[in-house]
Order: sequence, then C-alpha cells, then structure tokens
Amino acid sequence: MKHHLISAADLTRDDAVLILDTAEEMARVADRPIKKLPTLRGRTVVNLFYEDSTRTRISFEAAAKRLSADVINFSAKGSSVSKGESLKDTALTLEAMGADAVVIRHHASGAPYRLANSGWIDGSVVNAGDGTHEHPTQALLDAFTVRRRLVGRDAGMGRDLAGRRITIVGDVLHSRVARSNVLLLNTLGAQVTVVAPPTLVPIGVESWPCEVSYDLDAVLPKSDAVMMLRVQRERMNAAFFPTEREYARRYGLNGDRMARMPEHAVVMHPGPMNRGMEITAEVADSDRCTAVEQVANGVSIRMAVLYLLLGGNESAAAHTSRTDAVRTEETE
Amino acid sequence: MKHHLISAADLTRDDAVLILDTAEEMARVADRPIKKLPTLRGRTVVNLFYEDSTRTRISFEAAAKRLSADVINFSAKGSSVSKGESLKDTALTLEAMGADAVVIRHHASGAPYRLANSGWIDGSVVNAGDGTHEHPTQALLDAFTVRRRLVGRDAGMGRDLAGRRITIVGDVLHSRVARSNVLLLNTLGAQVTVVAPPTLVPIGVESWPCEVSYDLDAVLPKSDAVMMLRVQRERMNAAFFPTEREYARRYGLNGDRMARMPEHAVVMHPGPMNRGMEITAEVADSDRCTAVEQVANGVSIRMAVLYLLLGGNESAAAHTSRTDAVRTEETE
Amino acid sequence: MKHHLISAADLTRDDAVLILDTAEEMARVADRPIKKLPTLRGRTVVNLFYEDSTRTRISFEAAAKRLSADVINFSAKGSSVSKGESLKDTALTLEAMGADAVVIRHHASGAPYRLANSGWIDGSVVNAGDGTHEHPTQALLDAFTVRRRLVGRDAGMGRDLAGRRITIVGDVLHSRVARSNVLLLNTLGAQVTVVAPPTLVPIGVESWPCEVSYDLDAVLPKSDAVMMLRVQRERMNAAFFPTEREYARRYGLNGDRMARMPEHAVVMHPGPMNRGMEITAEVADSDRCTAVEQVANGVSIRMAVLYLLLGGNESAAAHTSRTDAVRTEETE
Repeated sequence: MKHHLISAADLTRDDAVLILDTAEEMARVADRPIKKLPTLRGRTVVNLFYEDSTRTRISFEAAAKRLSADVINFSAKGSSVSKGESLKDTALTLEAMGADAVVIRHHASGAPYRLANSGWIDGSVVNAGDGTHEHPTQALLDAFTVRRRLVGRDAGMGRDLAGRRITIVGDVLHSRVARSNVLLLNTLGAQVTVVAPPTLVPIGVESWPCEVSYDLDAVLPKSDAVMMLRVQRERMNAAFFPTEREYARRYGLNGDRMARMPEHAVVMHPGPMNRGMEITAEVADSDRCTAVEQVANGVSIRMAVLYLLLGGNESAAAHTSRTDAVRTEETE
Repeated sequence: MKHHLISAADLTRDDAVLILDTAEEMARVADRPIKKLPTLRGRTVVNLFYEDSTRTRISFEAAAKRLSADVINFSAKGSSVSKGESLKDTALTLEAMGADAVVIRHHASGAPYRLANSGWIDGSVVNAGDGTHEHPTQALLDAFTVRRRLVGRDAGMGRDLAGRRITIVGDVLHSRVARSNVLLLNTLGAQVTVVAPPTLVPIGVESWPCEVSYDLDAVLPKSDAVMMLRVQRERMNAAFFPTEREYARRYGLNGDRMARMPEHAVVMHPGPMNRGMEITAEVADSDRCTAVEQVANGVSIRMAVLYLLLGGNESAAAHTSRTDAVRTEETE
Repeated sequence: MKHHLISAADLTRDDAVLILDTAEEMARVADRPIKKLPTLRGRTVVNLFYEDSTRTRISFEAAAKRLSADVINFSAKGSSVSKGESLKDTALTLEAMGADAVVIRHHASGAPYRLANSGWIDGSVVNAGDGTHEHPTQALLDAFTVRRRLVGRDAGMGRDLAGRRITIVGDVLHSRVARSNVLLLNTLGAQVTVVAPPTLVPIGVESWPCEVSYDLDAVLPKSDAVMMLRVQRERMNAAFFPTEREYARRYGLNGDRMARMPEHAVVMHPGPMNRGMEITAEVADSDRCTAVEQVANGVSIRMAVLYLLLGGNESAAAHTSRTDAVRTEETE
C-alpha cells in the first residue's frame, strides 16, 4: 500500500482486500474487554477539517484513539487559515509539529492530492472527502459492509466482490461517495450500475467503469446491493434538481421497490438518511438496511487504514506483531 | 443502580448514598501522585451537547479522563444535526461508533429520557441538563457538598441527609437544578424549602416534596444550607420577572441575611455567580460559601457516576477491585 | 524557575538557558520509536483561549500530549464566559477542577499576570500571548532556533547568545513577539536592533534594551539573525500604517536584501508568512529561512516549559529522573 490514501483509484485489488481483511481484525477489538490497541501510541493524527462533518471527524477520532494515537482536531474555521493562511503554510506547520497522519476534509476537489504530493509533509495524508471528487474511506466501508453481508465475516477474508451486482442511486453528479464507490467496487470485481435523474449524471460518465440507467425499477431485481445516496437538501431547489415529490416518486426506495429486490439483497445508505425523500422509514428501519452497520464498519475501516499507513506492513511478520500487540495489551 | 442517569427521581436512597460514597473515594484520586485511575481504559465517553455549557462539558471531560476513558466532544452546533439530523440518527451513529456512555445536554426537556428509552443505544445515558427539567449530577454534587460540610468527609460515609433543613432560593420556575435538588434531597431525608418570587414558582409545586415560602428572612434562621440559584440574565426583562433591584433586595443573599443563618450553615451556588444580583461579593467570597468546592465535587461526582454506570458494581468485590485498580496504577 | 511563565522579563539568564537545554532533550523524544514521555501522566493542562489561535493552541496541545498530560481545550467563545463570567470565576472553576497548568491566550494585556497573581489558582499559568504585551514561549522558541543555527545542537548546550547580533523588523508597536524577544535576547546576552516604520515604533522604546533603526539595509550586514514580524493585515489600512507597497519596498525582506546579510546569518519568521509583504517567496523558501524549524522548536520549548513548571526541577537529580522516565517508557 502507498503512503497516502487519496483516491479509491489508487488502490489495487490486493490493497483493497488487505484493508478489508485488516478491518475485520480491527472489528474484533471492539469485542475485547479493553477496546484498544497500543499500536499507534506516541503517534499524532491531525483531523484537518475545512468543512464541518462531525460524523466523519468523530469516526476518525474514535479509530485513532482505539489505536492509542494522540488526536488533534484542527477546524479551519476561525483559525489563521480563515485569515488567509495557505494550505502550504498549514501543511508545513502540521509537518513541523510532528503529525504522523493528516486526515483532511476540504471543499475543494484535489486539495488532499495537493497536500500529499507537494513535498510539504512527510506524514500520511488521508482524504476524508474533497469537494465532489472522492471519499475513499466511505467506499471502503461500503465495500466492507457488502462483503460481510453477501459473503460473510470469516468466509469473506481474502475475498473480493467478483460478480456481485451493485446499484448506486441518486445525485451522482455531486457525490464523491458515488465516484469513490464506482471505482473501488470495480477494482473489487463487482458489476456496478448507477441510476440517477438525467440532470444529475456527470458529464463523462461514459468513461466510468459502470452502466448507467434511468429506470430504478428495472435494475432492482438484478441488484445484490442498492446504495442510496443522501439528497443534499441545499441543492434541492436548484434548476437541475427534480422537485422533492418527483424525486421521491422516481428515485426513492420504498417498501414496494424493496420487495422487487432479490431476497438476499441489502439496502445501503451513508447516513444521515432523509426519511421520506430518498428512503422511506419502512425501508430505513428494516433488517435489510445496513446504515447503522456502515457507521460501525467506518470505525473499523479507518482503524485499518491508519494502522496500515502508519504502523503495519503487509508481511506475515506484521501479522504476527499485530497479534502480539493484542496479547501485550491484554496482559498489561 | 440502573443503566442510565436521567432523573434524580430514579435514584433510591441507597443509590444516592452509593454515589456519594463512591465520589468520596474518587476525590482521593486527586491526592495521589498520578491523579488517574485505569478503570475505564478503552471505554469511550461522548459529550453530546446541543447547548453550550463549557463548565459542565469540561467537568465531565475531566472526570472521564481521570478514569482513563477516551472522550469525544460532539457539539451539535454546525454539525449534521443542525442540517436536520434527528436525535434518532445521531443516537444510532454514536451507538454504532461504540460509545459506552453518552452525556447529553439538550434544550428540550425529556430528550435524555427519549435517548435512553428508545432502544437506539446500548450505552449508558447521562443527563447533563435538559430544558427546565433536570440536572441530576448537579443535584448529586450539591448533596455531596452538603454532606461533607454538615456531616464530614469520613463521618459522612454511608450517611444520608436525614433531618437537615435545606433552602433553595431563586427562579425555581426555570431551574432544572432546583427540581433535581428538591427530588434528591427529599430522597436523602432532608427537609426542603423553596423560596421564590410568586411569579417564578412552578404550577403544580404543591405536589413537590417540599415547602414553599415567599419570605427569605423568615426561613434563613431555620436553614442548615441555603442554595442560591443563578439568575439567568436573559430572562430578566420578561414580564414575570421582578426588576433587578427588587430581585436583589428581596431574594439576594447579603451579609446581613447571612448573619441570620445558624453558625454552621453554608451558602451554596452552582456558579457562575452574578455578584450583586442573587449574591453579594461579601457572601460569595466568605468561607461559608461552597461555590468553588461544588465545582471540585462535580468532578468527583461525575467520576463516581461514570464509574458506577460503566465500570463498577455494588458488591464488596467491586470495592476490592477498585482498590486493586488503584494499587496497580500506583506500582505501574 | 518560578511557578508561572508570564513574561520574558521574569526569566534570568540561567532560567532561560535551562529551558533551552531542556528543550533540546525534549526534541530528542521525537526521534524515538514512541514519541512520548510519561512525565505528566495524570496532570491536566487547560488551554484557555479568549482569542482564536489554532497554531499556538495545537502546539501546546501536542507538547502536553507528548508528555502524557490530559488536555482540555476551553475556548471562551460561546461559553459562559461570553455570558459575562469573570476571569475570576473562570479561574476558580479551573482550579477547582484540578487544572495543573492553565495556558492562557487573551486579548487584554496583563490578563495572564492577573490570573497568576490573584491567588485564584494554585496551578501554573503560562502566557500564550496577551494583547500587545508578551508571548514568552514564542521568544523562547526563537532563541532556541537561533542558538541551534548559530552555535549548534550539542555545542549549544549550556550556552547563551552572548555577542550575537539580532535584528527584529516590522510592526514593533503592536507586536507582543517583538517585546518578548527584545527582553529575552538581551537577557541571553545578544545585541538587539529593532527596525520599524517610524509610526510603528512604541513610545518609550528608548527604555528598551535595544537599538532602534529606520534603515534596514544598513543593519542587515551586521546581523547574525533577522527576525521578520508578521504584518497583521487587519491593521494595514490604518492611518499610521504605510501602504502595502511602501511597506514591502522599505521593510520587506527580498533576495537582494538577504544577499547583504553575512553568509552564516538566518532569516526567522513566526508564521504564517505573508509572502510578498514582509518576506518574498524566494526568501521564505530558502534554506536560510527557519520558519518551519521554528514551529517544530515550538513544541520542544512548550514541552520544556510544561515539564519544568509541572514536573521537573533544576537539580542533577531531576536530570537523572528525567532520563529514567525515558528509559521506563522505552522498556514498558
């Protein structure tokens, strides 16, 4: 695995499977009496957030703390950043302060790439969402959730998603989650279809490794998993956006539609859900909806990413030391 | 003790005495070379604050950290919560992230109850103040302060407040502190009197387990402790509120009034004090005023509550392991 | 060393050298596998910030965490402080909660002094910048940076800056950094010159232990280090301020000016830099500019200050136990 995690496109199939497998190991930490590994003690993880996103920030913070890292939250609002400090100066500051990893959320697509490739910092950069570009840890936790549900926890180890049919529904144009998911799921061997209102399909989608459809009902029976995108209410009155009613009618998932899905198929949502818009309460609260698991899986995935970037490596030796770390902690 | 702490009304006399006794043990941690217990290592405490309250948040944060828990601060302002996320979705998120305790402050009375009884989360819920309803840890720290001052530190162990006469003065109508205190003090056997301007007495006060008086001067000589409520300046120009001058004259505690109290009696205030309004500087700075002790006691009480909800149980065995924990830490 | 760090003026030459030497030891922690010392475990450091200053707050937070202290961030914005709580009440609260150190940043000159000398708190007070008065840890990290560059890491141990010629350039009138630096550098034996636009020289500068010049070009060849002050853009349209162009032309450091400096001389800047204003990009990015080192040195200096105020003492015994602490951590 590389030194940074900027884009789902950078991950090979083996990288991705390694992250999913490591996340399964990390998930087991939550079952132990002391839900913590000493692996990253003395390491510093900085959450550098130019956009508010409490859920994502908390997930990374919980992940880092479970690995015993020190966490420093840096909200760019009201800081010298808002007084005109450049990304470069901020980066040099964090580097000088000894940040081992910088988790960055930025409104501008490409900011994490710039941070990682500028030579400004030695630490690892993790993209926690940039503009309409990518959100790779979200894609990883989604893939992890699919694998667990469709293949199994133990049975899934070492496996990818070859042959699974996954449908992504909603405002694909503005969704970094959609983009990252299409790329990662394709890398993992899945067959991906995106379903969106015609005005909300990105230009150039022809080059994406997926099918495009405008007919949700036709696609549902052939889906092993359906990922509903969150409607961003602030976009909803824009000219290119269908009315709320029209959106819910054509692209919302309700009980009738869920019934058309194969019995084993799951419904996914990155949360928080707009009940009544892209998903009805009935679907949101059904056993087939994985929204809550996705949140829990997010912590495991972020632990795995931080672990692999900062602390581990891919050899069997690493695996052993990982187990040792667990043992040490337990007998401490 | 139950799994949550929502209301002072839920505590039996034995629950309350157990918390006070445990808080005495926790207070001793501050005297040790390393002011920390390993009890809650690996546990996560989330401070979920829908209202700003730095003092209360810091008190819980300090308490959790002294027990070695990981603390995550979640200010609902500017988060997805303010974008319309429901309490339910937030709860499911925190549950999925593995929160062992959620300390919630909310402007709406009843929000902590709903969080605890919804089935949304398995972790413990601690009410850190909801609307005009309750603030049980404040009542506990007040009772702890009274017991220490009137009965003694060691002499107080295992004891309640039977027969003590306690007077609560101020805007009882809007005070969650008053309500929680009346309930808890009554449970602990004290005789409680509330003194308030007629327009600031809640409807239904007849059903409260206390006396009501409008004459502070008459009550003072029969009080072992007088709890002054903080005047909320933002309410002060409302029609139902006396003028500042009138309020200070009739319900403020000054040196003359303090002289009418029995010699052993104490003056309490939850802070921050409005010197010159509900309390004069002379009284605030006298040895009889416990305001500063109350803050310190707040950390001990919150340690006790988190310890009992998350880590301990009521048997002698628990007591032993608690002592062991202390010993382990010291020899580490 | 005293119990607080309020002003560079309070430090004797031996105090200052001790802090610099301790910071050198602390800097070595960053080279160890676990970049952390257990020295302040169980101690609580509160960052009490009445002004936003993410860089300074993060630097103290990182320093405290590397010493294993618990850190509580208290931003006065939106807290009960903004509801009219006095500095006294806030201080009593922090004291009661067991703060071992309060790092205070305040818009009012003298607030840290008041906090330290009021008797309100027993913990140590560290001034992290007050009004236009002082910023002593900035001066210490600057002195540390000069000593490292001009004398050497190991060679510098135990040494002061006797005979070094240091020039401070910019808006001296509003700069707490300038004031603290003049005082500390003088204590350390350096010869200090300040260069500023005539309207930005403080009244009473005659009593400062430094020379004053209005001619940057004349001073540069006789400087071993040139400290550029940051231009505060919010002041720049005031009547007393030169135009941007004029400022950059007369007081900005560019490549031509840097070429007039002795070969060994360094350029310093507290950051963040206004490239094109007080410093050109060419100078900012040259090897002679220490801005990034200064940030890293800031963490070492703050570790040293917290260590000496809270955990260490000046005897050889302390030195031994310090080394033991390191050893303990490594073999843990």
